[in-house]
Amino acid sequence: MPTILVTNDDGISSPGIKILAKTLKSIGEIYVVAPETEQSAVAHALTLHRPLKSEKTGKNTYYINGTPTDCVIIGVNKLLPSKPDIIVSGINNGGNLGDNLTYSGTVAAAIEGTLLGIPSIAISLVTEYKNNPGSRNLTAGFQRAADYAKTIVIKIIETGMPKDTLLNINVPNLSAIKGTKITKQGKLVYDNGIQELSDPRGKECYWIGGGEPKWERGGDTDLDAISNDYISVTPVHLDLTNYKAMKYMEKNWKF
Amino acid sequence: MPTILVTNDDGISSPGIKILAKTLKSIGEIYVVAPETEQSAVAHALTLHRPLKSEKTGKNTYYINGTPTDCVIIGVNKLLPSKPDIIVSGINNGGNLGDNLTYSGTVAAAIEGTLLGIPSIAISLVTEYKNNPGSRNLTAGFQRAADYAKTIVIKIIETGMPKDTLLNINVPNLSAIKGTKITKQGKLVYDNGIQELSDPRGKECYWIGGGEPKWERGGDTDLDAISNDYISVTPVHLDLTNYKAMKYMEKNWKF
Repeated sequence: MPTILVTNDDGISSPGIKILAKTLKSIGEIYVVAPETEQSAVAHALTLHRPLKSEKTGKNTYYINGTPTDCVIIGVNKLLPSKPDIIVSGINNGGNLGDNLTYSGTVAAAIEGTLLGIPSIAISLVTEYKNNPGSRNLTAGFQRAADYAKTIVIKIIETGMPKDTLLNINVPNLSAIKGTKITKQGKLVYDNGIQELSDPRGKECYWIGGGEPKWERGGDTDLDAISNDYISVTPVHLDLTNYKAMKYMEKNWKF
Repeated sequence: MPTILVTNDDGISSPGIKILAKTLKSIGEIYVVAPETEQSAVAHALTLHRPLKSEKTGKNTYYINGTPTDCVIIGVNKLLPSKPDIIVSGINNGGNLGDNLTYSGTVAAAIEGTLLGIPSIAISLVTEYKNNPGSRNLTAGFQRAADYAKTIVIKIIETGMPKDTLLNINVPNLSAIKGTKITKQGKLVYDNGIQELSDPRGKECYWIGGGEPKWERGGDTDLDAISNDYISVTPVHLDLTNYKAMKYMEKNWKF
């Protein structure tokens, strides 16, 4: 049985990680190492300025007072008996689509796993967009996503993963999912809404959020797959070099 | 005169940002919006769970109790009179090289600027590697990097930037710099050192840090440019799709 490290950014108490860990139990030895509290939008943040503590809360189950990236580093190096065969991060309550993946703690955990040379996937339930009517109770959605994670993990154990690459998977919150599309990262033109408010002492504050994301449509993007009721699977690598720009600059930018 | 937003991840009080802002004054209208405290390794983290406050500390100068990404969002949307012509993030005290750029708050500020459609650069002084003898006082190094930032900003104002792309610039902390190389992101095999220690109550803790980064050598990487005493300029884009893997999976992964 493969060893599977399960983590997330919604925190150890979130329903998504519990359903995921339970579902994967039938195919692997599961370790859960997740943040103590919600860490949404922490991106690939790493805690360097203070020590971290872990608490064991059950068999092979730990929380850490840090970020998803911290959880992967401490989990792999200190809490697990050996390097896991695969890391599964999720199930996130909310999509990680388009350019938003650069903010995502869920995806960051899979990035850290990939840096450590471990096949890693991030899986999210898209709750912002279409939903089944009356689907405020997300249990069914999380279960469908967990079943899908299981299928993918079996596939990865059998056939391996592209080198230095993680899979960013988004599952629509629908009972009638049409299938899977291999996708590219979409372009999200995010209009960062900012709410202005006053603190109890009358001091002005800004609260980021509430903007309407605008998607560039067309093409084989994650955004389009989701809006057409498909699961999107995006292979994500960690080399951010724009090679085209590199060539252009070498020719045209004289130093 | 172009409007230039200057930010960083080392915080408003760091010498790097002060020297940078002062140096750029001769070519633009400068606004400084930076984190109140050091935000190293916060990556592209975005503060969504609480409101943010800004304090004006001088002409066109603000700090925010948040991350570099927060500073760019609040700066561009609320504090500046209009969208800046360019964003310069730095000068970071320490390199942002290879895969480390995914952790970097300095680079994240430039990522956010790029998402907002503003030409953006991140600039770092590489203090971990070679240094001039006796160069613990970094003022000369920061000044050289600031002068370089000025040159690049003039170039960008004149010739524009590749679309959806930022420049990640690393400057060696040497007086005899050989020139500039256009580079790709290097591969850093980071061995995350973890120190084990006890808190005052005897509880075991983990402190991440102190590992020796191992670089994959060869090629036109940022790491190689720096180790050969060149400034590295890496064009970084935000599309993380591994297109090769996408094609491979479309052919070979049957769903």
